[in-house]
Amino acid sequence: MSDPIADRLALAQRLATEAGRLALRFFHDRDELEIETKGNPQNIVSRADRAVEALIRRGIGAAFPEDAILGEEDGRSEGKSGVTWVIDPIDGTSPFLAGLPHWCVALALVEGTTTVAGVIEVPVAEEQFTARRGKGAWLDGAPMRVRPGARLDNSLTAIGASHRTDPEHAAQVIGDLMRAGGLFYRNGSGALMLASVAAGRLGGYYEPHMHPWDCLAGMLMVAEAGGRCTTLPGPLQAGGLVMATAPGLWDDLARIAGV
Amino acid sequence: MSDPIADRLALAQRLATEAGRLALRFFHDRDELEIETKGNPQNIVSRADRAVEALIRRGIGAAFPEDAILGEEDGRSEGKSGVTWVIDPIDGTSPFLAGLPHWCVALALVEGTTTVAGVIEVPVAEEQFTARRGKGAWLDGAPMRVRPGARLDNSLTAIGASHRTDPEHAAQVIGDLMRAGGLFYRNGSGALMLASVAAGRLGGYYEPHMHPWDCLAGMLMVAEAGGRCTTLPGPLQAGGLVMATAPGLWDDLARIAGV
Repeated sequence: MSDPIADRLALAQRLATEAGRLALRFFHDRDELEIETKGNPQNIVSRADRAVEALIRRGIGAAFPEDAILGEEDGRSEGKSGVTWVIDPIDGTSPFLAGLPHWCVALALVEGTTTVAGVIEVPVAEEQFTARRGKGAWLDGAPMRVRPGARLDNSLTAIGASHRTDPEHAAQVIGDLMRAGGLFYRNGSGALMLASVAAGRLGGYYEPHMHPWDCLAGMLMVAEAGGRCTTLPGPLQAGGLVMATAPGLWDDLARIAGV
Repeated sequence: MSDPIADRLALAQRLATEAGRLALRFFHDRDELEIETKGNPQNIVSRADRAVEALIRRGIGAAFPEDAILGEEDGRSEGKSGVTWVIDPIDGTSPFLAGLPHWCVALALVEGTTTVAGVIEVPVAEEQFTARRGKGAWLDGAPMRVRPGARLDNSLTAIGASHRTDPEHAAQVIGDLMRAGGLFYRNGSGALMLASVAAGRLGGYYEPHMHPWDCLAGMLMVAEAGGRCTTLPGPLQAGGLVMATAPGLWDDLARIAGV
């Protein structure tokens, strides 16, 4: 019997790899990309983001034309299957355009309001993170786990921020994190930082508001890798607060972040 | 006529590559490394740091036995030539041991109190940054420049921190940076972040106190790549405050950091 989510996850993995290859070509020629701002100089989009999202949408449309799609750049298209693909063609557009290696392609599969699978492809590192609800999380096919023994005072804790983040709150969180013996980390790609928590490379992640395309795949990875994670309140498009950590950091980071 | 600094820079480049290869082998087997803390759980050292520093010291001793050496792990050995090699065998031990890709080997050549050359090798990215005072800065042999047009509100600004950083001050800097439209960045390797400013990937860098092995090579790179940079007050071992930016960020970041 065919497993509809397994079929889609296999396609998501192939599309993420293809999309990553296309994005990498734009990355190597990034000086030729025209950059548009979306209302704020820190919120940018390029032709690369649009072309990569179009490639992914074509692949989904060809194989699963009845699925809904919610993408960062081209918004929502409705479906009839009950499955929604949530796409961030380039998560970390700002590091991407600056020439930093931390950016990724993020795909999540959502049934109703539940994320059932996720793929994060990191082209510069040639790494692919995957997760499937109830079955586990993998880095290039090998099972991944959050870091055992991770605490605030022996780990790097990622603090996400955007032009939408309240500076007062970010400052309070970072001050309190350091007072508790922690050190902050931020590379500009929320999806990749969440995947890094799942892989045991970071102790935890907190951001007061993320869009669903930035966070759903990575949140599932942390949960499936033995970590703890918030859930978005819904509706899907609205996004929300995200905290995802190895178990040993949860209480301390929750207190600091006021979660 | 032989150029004593050119000869040493050529050796520094070779040693950084060799040291990076050795460090990369430890990185791939990092689960087997025993980790010691240096008085604080966020200040760690492993056998890898010591073995890589020993390799570099042997290479210097064989070619330039009269040079002085100041290394992060094994301290200072005096010399008679007037040249001091300043070594960080693995800058970013914490990301290194966590499995993150941001760590590097950093070497600086100092005459008196003036940094005359620097090499930063990033093994995972297979990149080598170099600089020579008065001659320029290069990424894998191609000249590098700080980002033209960089401002606080269109760049990522790196904020360095360690267990020695005052949490109050870090919180104030990050709050004020965000109020000015900036976004903070921190990957745990100060030397690599400084090199990234020189390469135009980050707008600027600020840290209230750095050791000389963390900062001298990268500071020279920023200055030689057209940026602005503080100087350490001396003596060499003491380190000090570091700010290094593309020209367009200098005034704004200096005001925020109180420099």
